[in-house]
Amino acid sequence: MSGAMNFRKCGSVLVTGASRGIGLQLVDSLASGAFSPGKIIATTRNPSSAQKLQKLAEKYPNIHIITLDVVNQDSIEKSAEEVGLLVQDKGLNCLINNAGINVSADFQSVTAEKMIENFHTNAVSPLMITKTFLPLLKAAASRGGAGMGIQKAAVINIGSLLGSVELAMDSSFRWYPYRVSKSALNMVSRCMAVDLEADGILCMAVHPGWVRTDMGGVQAPLTPEDSVASLLSVIGGLTEKDHGSFLNLTGEPLPW
Amino acid sequence: MSGAMNFRKCGSVLVTGASRGIGLQLVDSLASGAFSPGKIIATTRNPSSAQKLQKLAEKYPNIHIITLDVVNQDSIEKSAEEVGLLVQDKGLNCLINNAGINVSADFQSVTAEKMIENFHTNAVSPLMITKTFLPLLKAAASRGGAGMGIQKAAVINIGSLLGSVELAMDSSFRWYPYRVSKSALNMVSRCMAVDLEADGILCMAVHPGWVRTDMGGVQAPLTPEDSVASLLSVIGGLTEKDHGSFLNLTGEPLPW
Ligand SMILES: NC(=O)c1ccc[n+]([C@@H]2O[C@H](COP(=O)([O-])OP(=O)(O)OC[C@H]3O[C@@H](n4cnc5c(N)ncnc54)[C@H](OP(=O)(O)O)[C@@H]3O)[C@@H](O)[C@H]2O)c1
Ligand SMILES: NC(=O)c1ccc[n+]([C@@H]2O[C@H](COP(=O)([O-])OP(=O)(O)OC[C@H]3O[C@@H](n4cnc5c(N)ncnc54)[C@H](OP(=O)(O)O)[C@@H]3O)[C@@H](O)[C@H]2O)c1
Repeated sequence: MSGAMNFRKCGSVLVTGASRGIGLQLVDSLASGAFSPGKIIATTRNPSSAQKLQKLAEKYPNIHIITLDVVNQDSIEKSAEEVGLLVQDKGLNCLINNAGINVSADFQSVTAEKMIENFHTNAVSPLMITKTFLPLLKAAASRGGAGMGIQKAAVINIGSLLGSVELAMDSSFRWYPYRVSKSALNMVSRCMAVDLEADGILCMAVHPGWVRTDMGGVQAPLTPEDSVASLLSVIGGLTEKDHGSFLNLTGEPLPW
Repeated sequence: MSGAMNFRKCGSVLVTGASRGIGLQLVDSLASGAFSPGKIIATTRNPSSAQKLQKLAEKYPNIHIITLDVVNQDSIEKSAEEVGLLVQDKGLNCLINNAGINVSADFQSVTAEKMIENFHTNAVSPLMITKTFLPLLKAAASRGGAGMGIQKAAVINIGSLLGSVELAMDSSFRWYPYRVSKSALNMVSRCMAVDLEADGILCMAVHPGWVRTDMGGVQAPLTPEDSVASLLSVIGGLTEKDHGSFLNLTGEPLPW
């Protein structure tokens, strides 16, 4: 758990899709952990219905709830303004693109609309959010020292093993919209890694394991707590050698 | 050039985006070559403006021009009906998903709309076309013998080296919409390979090289003739060992 310690040196973390599942747990574990970052910015498309998140924010004063619908550019821009007011010239240290959907459809039932809906939320939104938050990430990176990591500035994309093209023929999960969106996210992540490098902003994708959430279902072996404990350890320990990587929650690289 | 010989044993080949570039050259080389398939079905979204294709069809009676706008489901279904009438119970042996666009945009200029437009044409359309033509591919496969290949039934997706996630950080081309669409196409291709396997339908993706077309530009090193000669050799020589692969025009595998 050495990596998670580094969140102590992290001024601000933003999590998208923080109303439930892995996103909510990220906020919970960051707030309640021994190494809590300065500000935890929990975004959700509908704060008033995010009861559990509201409860957490009442308990931990470093949680700030901001409205963000990741498929809506106006919403992305508005949230970036609000985050700017919150973090001021310290900028944003760690952006976790977690919000995601699984538009389940197999070869028989897939449609162009389903493919595009899943692609937009899971692959395009992390790109548009990162673009829009770039000034805040740059501000944080410019105050950091040498090297890369969450103490400086980082973009973490919550990917999936199901986005591995290499492994696609070994598995029985052939949900076209989801799989394709997550492989597309890996390409977005790699292209952004090149574009963010000059500013010293780390960018990578990480698979959270198969987790018991609304998306993962009741059969999933991992609790959100266990998944997030490993995720925070991996994310906290990232350095420049992990730039552009696609890691498992164990910290090991996954194949494209 | 041994592979190309096998087109002699191929009853029908369909090429999308046959108005110009690599698609037009595929039709030309298939028609004029020593090993021409029974029927060459050249599809284009606008036959009346496809002058060069019209000229070719006047010269070679085995070329059949059919209207197909790859992003329009009605058009896909209508074209499948017309192809059905043309090939009858022999079915369709070889479907080449070639139509593609490059919506050029870098990190600064990329928008959600540009990402979705390129994704739709380059990744979603090959999926929707293959689904819709499945009965015709199955008909052809059921008449073929053992093994896999174009003499039986095959779906060939014209991919790109720029769709390789692994190679994405080595190159200076960071056209987000195009790169992401082609990595998504690789995932589509792999998922379809699993779904088409039981029917004996081969599915793979191939990179045509950097080719002097409207898309490739005047600086591209390969002529359409040279690219297509290699492509036809690779495609003609495909067997079950190439099912689910991503090959260079040299026939060597490319990294995901
Ligand atoms: N669970 C797994 O086994 C697993 C495995 C691999 C990867 N992942 C990935 O991990 C991430 C989180 O998954 P999860 O299991 O926690 O899923 P989940 O329980 O279904 O939660 C999804 C979260 O994303 C939010 N979201 C969806 N669309 C949104 C939008 N347009 N704007 C803002 N928020 C939006 C949801 O908000 P609302 O409450 O407003 O709907 C919710 O907070 C996803 O990217 C998923 O693909 C999960
Ligand atoms: N050239 C290269 O260096 C290169 C390298 C790697 C991969 N590729 C791939 O090779 C394929 C062919 O590229 P190219 O160089 O020949 O490109 P091109 O010269 O620009 O030709 C593109 C073709 O696709 C058609 N098309 C586009 N959208 C369509 C739609 N909605 N419905 C039907 N047809 C549509 C065009 O038809 P219209 O005439 O009606 O517009 C045209 O026939 C593409 O998939 C491309 O990504 C090319």
